[in-house]
Amino acid sequence: MLEFRVVARDGRARRGRLVTARGVTVETPVFMPVGTQATVKSLSPDELESLGASIILGNTYHLYLRPGAERVARLGGLHRFMAWHRAILTDSGGFQVFSLARTRAVEEEGVRFQSHIDGSSHFIRPETAMEIQRLLGSDIAMCFDECTPYPVTRDYAEESMRRTVRWAERCRRSRTGDHQAVFGIVQGSVFADLRKACLEALQEIGFEGYAVGSLSVGEPKETMLSVLEELAPCLPEERPRYLMGVGTPEDLVEGVRLGIDMFDCVMPTRNARNGALFTSSGNLQIKNSRFADDSEPIERGCTCYTCRRFSRAYLRHLFLARELLAYRLNTLHNLHYYLKLMADIRNAVEAGSFESWRKDFYERRSGGSS
Amino acid sequence: MLEFRVVARDGRARRGRLVTARGVTVETPVFMPVGTQATVKSLSPDELESLGASIILGNTYHLYLRPGAERVARLGGLHRFMAWHRAILTDSGGFQVFSLARTRAVEEEGVRFQSHIDGSSHFIRPETAMEIQRLLGSDIAMCFDECTPYPVTRDYAEESMRRTVRWAERCRRSRTGDHQAVFGIVQGSVFADLRKACLEALQEIGFEGYAVGSLSVGEPKETMLSVLEELAPCLPEERPRYLMGVGTPEDLVEGVRLGIDMFDCVMPTRNARNGALFTSSGNLQIKNSRFADDSEPIERGCTCYTCRRFSRAYLRHLFLARELLAYRLNTLHNLHYYLKLMADIRNAVEAGSFESWRKDFYERRSGGSS
Ligand SMILES: [Zn+2]
Ligand SMILES: [Zn+2]
Repeated sequence: MLEFRVVARDGRARRGRLVTARGVTVETPVFMPVGTQATVKSLSPDELESLGASIILGNTYHLYLRPGAERVARLGGLHRFMAWHRAILTDSGGFQVFSLARTRAVEEEGVRFQSHIDGSSHFIRPETAMEIQRLLGSDIAMCFDECTPYPVTRDYAEESMRRTVRWAERCRRSRTGDHQAVFGIVQGSVFADLRKACLEALQEIGFEGYAVGSLSVGEPKETMLSVLEELAPCLPEERPRYLMGVGTPEDLVEGVRLGIDMFDCVMPTRNARNGALFTSSGNLQIKNSRFADDSEPIERGCTCYTCRRFSRAYLRHLFLARELLAYRLNTLHNLHYYLKLMADIRNAVEAGSFESWRKDFYERRSGGSS
Repeated sequence: MLEFRVVARDGRARRGRLVTARGVTVETPVFMPVGTQATVKSLSPDELESLGASIILGNTYHLYLRPGAERVARLGGLHRFMAWHRAILTDSGGFQVFSLARTRAVEEEGVRFQSHIDGSSHFIRPETAMEIQRLLGSDIAMCFDECTPYPVTRDYAEESMRRTVRWAERCRRSRTGDHQAVFGIVQGSVFADLRKACLEALQEIGFEGYAVGSLSVGEPKETMLSVLEELAPCLPEERPRYLMGVGTPEDLVEGVRLGIDMFDCVMPTRNARNGALFTSSGNLQIKNSRFADDSEPIERGCTCYTCRRFSRAYLRHLFLARELLAYRLNTLHNLHYYLKLMADIRNAVEAGSFESWRKDFYERRSGGSS
C-alpha cells in the first residue's frame, strides 16, 4: 500500500513523506517530472536520479497505444522497461483521451476514441484504464475520469462529475492486490459546491490519495486559486493531495500554501525544449540575441550540470542550430530548478518559515530576468 | 607543435602516439567522432570522455557560419566553448563548401559560395580558412583544399590537385605560431600518379601530418583500396596519416592494414540517429519488428551505458516514438563500438597479431546480425 505521514505543518502547508509499496520514499511537497512515453524527454534515468527526482509520471494513454501495456508487462513492467527504479504514478489516460484523441464519444460505459497516432478505434472503460495501469505496474494509479473542459455549464459539470464518481467506484472495485495505490480525482469544474460533493462521494468510496483534476485548463488564475482555496481544506488530512497538471513555479508555491502535496506538469520540460528557462530571478529565452556573447551560465550559482559546464552563448548556439544537446541541457536546468524549488519549499515548511520564504521567492522572481 | 611517434608496427599497420601542443595524448590508430556544430550530436562532452574519445573533429564551415569564428574566439576558443578539453581537429571547410553550399565558384584566389543556412554570400581564401581555424583554436588545422568529386576527368583532377597544392602553400605561409599543427591534404582523385605528385609537392612544403582526401566519395570500394594501397607506402613514416571521412568498420580495419593512423566519419553518429546499430556480429536496424519484445541489449557483453541499462525493445520503442533519448542511446552504443574497435586494433597491432585479429573480425562481422 501507500504510507503517508505529515511530518511538519506551517499554516496550511504540509511537509510529508510517502512510502510506496515497493519501499521507495518520496518527500513531499513533491514535483513529478512528466515521462509521457516511458522517458522524461531527452533525459536518461540516471540524470533524473542525479537531479533528485523521486517520482515521475507516466502517461497511460500513450503507453497503451505504444508500445502497449501488455508488452510493457511482458518486459517486466514500466520501471524495468525504462530502467527507472524510483516511484512512478500513472495518470488514467482520461486527460489525453479528451485532449489528444481524434474523435471521442463519452458513454456511461466508457469512452470511444481514435488514436492520434494511426486513427485506430479504441474503447476504454474505467476497468480497462485500471487494467492498463496494473500491467504497467506503476506505484500509484489514477481513477479514470472525464477531464472537464473550461468553460462548461453547471449542468454539464455536474453530469460529468457524477459520471466520474460512478467511474471511480468501478475503478475501486476492479482493483486487484495491494501493490498499487489508487487515487480518486475530484472534478466539478469551477463550481466549489460540485467539487465538494465530488470529494465527499470519493471519500465514501475511499482512496489512498485525492487529486484535483481539470484546473489550469484555461480558467483565470484567480478562479483556479479560489476553487483550490475552498476545496483544499476539505481534502482529508491524512492522505496525499495531488494537484494535477499544475504549473508555473508560482502555482506550485500557491498550491503548497493551500495544502497540496504533489504536482506534475510538462512546463519545465516542454519550455526547456522551446528555449524558455526558469531562474530564481525570472524566466529567460535562450535564443535572445543578448546572450550571443554571454559567457555566464543560465543562472549564476545554479549547481546543475548545464550551469556548471556551459555558457548562455553556447546554449544559444545549440538551440539556434537545433542541436539535440540543446534540449537535454535546457531540460536538465529547468528540472533542476523545479526540483530545487520543491526542496527549498520543504525546508521552509519544516523550518516554519514558509511565509517569509514565499515573500522572498516572489521578490526575487519578479526582479526580472537576469 | 605536434609530437608523433610510432611505437609498434605489424606489417604496414602502425601503433602510434600523438601529443598535441596543449599536451593531450592521442593513441593511434584513432577514430575521431564528428562534432559538426561544436557538439557531437546528442552527446555531452562528459559522455564523449567516458566513451574514451581523445580527439574529435569540428567543422570549420559550420562554425564559421554559426556561431561565427570570432565569437568562438571571444568566448575562449572551441575547447572552452563546448567544454571539451581533449584534442580537436578542424577540417578546412573545403568539403562542406563543395557539398553543402548552395552555389559555389572556384577561383584561383578561393571559393565564392552561398550559405546553406540563409543564402548569404561568402568568399573563402586559403588564408581565411586558416584564420578561422586559428580563431577556433583547434589543435590540428587542415589545409583548405578542393574536394574532388567522383568521377572526374584526369585533366580536371590534375588541375584541381595543382590548385590544392598552391592553396596548401598559401595555408602554410599564413600560419601564425606553433600552437596549431597543420596537415596537408593529398588530392588527385583515383589517379595514383596524381596522388603521388600531390604528396611530393606537399612534402616539399612540409606539414605536421598528411591526409588523404576525396576518397569514399562514390568510387567503388576496390578503387578506394587500390588508391590507398599505392599511396599509403609513400606517406612519410614519421608523420601521422589521416584518411578523411572514412568509413565503415571494415574500412577502418583496411585503412589500418595499409598504414593509416587517423579516421573520422559521421557514420556511427548518423546511423545511430537512423536506428542503424553496429555490433561485432553485424549491423542491426532497431526499428525492426523482431525487436518488439526483445529484452536483450543491442549487443550482449557490450559495456556501453545503453547496453548495460536498456533492452532492444525499449530502444525500439523510443525510436518509433521519436523520443530524443533514442538518438543519444543509439549514438552512445555506436560510438562505443567504433572506439572499442580502434582500441582492439591498437592492442592487436601492439601484440603483433593484427592479421589474425583481422580474420576473426571479418568472421564475426559476417556472421549476420544477431
Ligand atoms: Zn542550471
Ligand atoms: Zn552497447
